[in-house]
Amino acid sequence: MNVKHDLVESVVAGKRLPLARLLTLVENNAPEGQAALDQLFAHTGRAHLIGVTGSPGSGKSSLVNQIALALRNPSSGKPARSVAIVAVDPTSPFTGGAVLGDRVRMRDLAGDPGIFIRSMASRGALGGLARATTGVVQALDAAGFDIVLVETVGAGQAEVDIARLAHTTLVIEAPGMGDDIQAIKAGILEIADILVINKADHPGVDSTVRALRAMLELGHPTHSHSFTGSTTPLWIPPVLQTIATQSEGIDELVEAIDRHAAYLHATGAWQARDRSRLQVELEQLVQVELNNNWRASIPPELIQETLAQVETRQISPYQAAKQLTQPLPELHPG
Amino acid sequence: MNVKHDLVESVVAGKRLPLARLLTLVENNAPEGQAALDQLFAHTGRAHLIGVTGSPGSGKSSLVNQIALALRNPSSGKPARSVAIVAVDPTSPFTGGAVLGDRVRMRDLAGDPGIFIRSMASRGALGGLARATTGVVQALDAAGFDIVLVETVGAGQAEVDIARLAHTTLVIEAPGMGDDIQAIKAGILEIADILVINKADHPGVDSTVRALRAMLELGHPTHSHSFTGSTTPLWIPPVLQTIATQSEGIDELVEAIDRHAAYLHATGAWQARDRSRLQVELEQLVQVELNNNWRASIPPELIQETLAQVETRQISPYQAAKQLTQPLPELHPG
Repeated sequence: MNVKHDLVESVVAGKRLPLARLLTLVENNAPEGQAALDQLFAHTGRAHLIGVTGSPGSGKSSLVNQIALALRNPSSGKPARSVAIVAVDPTSPFTGGAVLGDRVRMRDLAGDPGIFIRSMASRGALGGLARATTGVVQALDAAGFDIVLVETVGAGQAEVDIARLAHTTLVIEAPGMGDDIQAIKAGILEIADILVINKADHPGVDSTVRALRAMLELGHPTHSHSFTGSTTPLWIPPVLQTIATQSEGIDELVEAIDRHAAYLHATGAWQARDRSRLQVELEQLVQVELNNNWRASIPPELIQETLAQVETRQISPYQAAKQLTQPLPELHPG
Repeated sequence: MNVKHDLVESVVAGKRLPLARLLTLVENNAPEGQAALDQLFAHTGRAHLIGVTGSPGSGKSSLVNQIALALRNPSSGKPARSVAIVAVDPTSPFTGGAVLGDRVRMRDLAGDPGIFIRSMASRGALGGLARATTGVVQALDAAGFDIVLVETVGAGQAEVDIARLAHTTLVIEAPGMGDDIQAIKAGILEIADILVINKADHPGVDSTVRALRAMLELGHPTHSHSFTGSTTPLWIPPVLQTIATQSEGIDELVEAIDRHAAYLHATGAWQARDRSRLQVELEQLVQVELNNNWRASIPPELIQETLAQVETRQISPYQAAKQLTQPLPELHPG
């Protein structure tokens, strides 16, 4: 695929308009977008990727804004860092949540050239959105942003999958969560590197902190490690309290984020997370390619006829799948 | 694959112990289980498959028990129907929710030979659980149960995917849901054939009914249809109120379930849902087969070497996937 060399060069040079154009190509799954990503990939691997997930109503968007502001205006003589924010909404198009969040976001952050914001909504398959998000994050990484924050709306498996693509995963909760939603939360806590109780001025914050610490204890049993004699330091996810609307607790949160990055680098976990992220991406792309190749190699009528045989219970779905995918004699990888 | 012919015959004859043994084989993804399912598939397609999903804490399990009891002991001279219940827990193994629900369930339903209960927990990949659930439901269908109720714990995408495999999908809510969780609910409401507000004696039931009706209105815009002149009757999901702990509203719910089955049969939607379910299953099995064939045809070292090239940014993940899956010269479907 022939790409305008200009586009790739302009993105690497940090120009905003070509970057926005590239992201649209990537979101639309356009071949030029993929070709540009192929060339840009050599420039990736420098940004600190931070996933932000957690319950709806926890004030995630406001907190992400505050993190971005703190990174732009560091307190103690540290250098300011450039920040890209990707807001992903995998829920139904008729919720409208992303649009509302964006308006608040624009008011706080607009006009700072060191901040770039992109919203992505689901337009069909969840798998498609996850793939597009991966591409968008790679483009922002290649464009030279120090920090890429990926925020997901909602708290389902899709959000967890997207958040897991990061070096550091923040899980945001609000006080007063009921016992009934622990089932959802348990899965999310397992992926948390840093836990944040936002709205820490609301009632019930102490019991929420206690409940989360208890659940973390289950997920990260620190006691069992004292017998192994391992010298690798273990990361115990801190439980922090913030009030995003009053900018309280934000500096401590940014400090924890930086501490986690330092931990990842010191232990080799940074590279391990990179590897596992790229492996997942490669496996998914292989699946897509295998499926594309298969569809191109088989007459659609044959699929329809086989499906009709399944519908009339002449063959089972498994037998049908076997028939439609005879093992291949050999493969010639390039 | 050679299966003990006995197993298949015993399951079709309605024997319980061989059925339980088959379900274990299916859950463990054992080749004998798949071979038995292949033979049993000709006997499927008769059960009414009902998916039950909704928020944790809505009292789903108690309600499912009450539905089963009502189907076993019908009020007005109707025949009793046999019922299989499949409880699926896709959340993390350490939530323990399924075990608790089972204990209550056993107390209510144990000893009735017309009821069969099976719990399934996630042991790894969500995709694996969804596939196993499909197989378990097919076995129960072939075993001759009139009704198969598939209940999922939690409210994420995985649960929605599992519930969607049914002819009729019940979405259960409790009163007093907050505005903040509407994002999750919106996606679930889209798949509801019948909406149930359980715990209808709790405060806030009227506003919850109002909110759900308003959201349904968005998802099923009935007004727009009045101009099309279509003569196909449209199914408007009813919003019902129940108190499972006091067996209130259960007969009305069973009536709505039967009305929905009659609607599906009258409009041809029953067959359409069957077809789309089998098509999804076939596509997923084809993906698994393609992936298995690919892994069998390619040296693992080559995958590792290619991944290393991606890690060192020599080639992009997309280029790597292309290299590892050269288009195939031809395929010989059996």
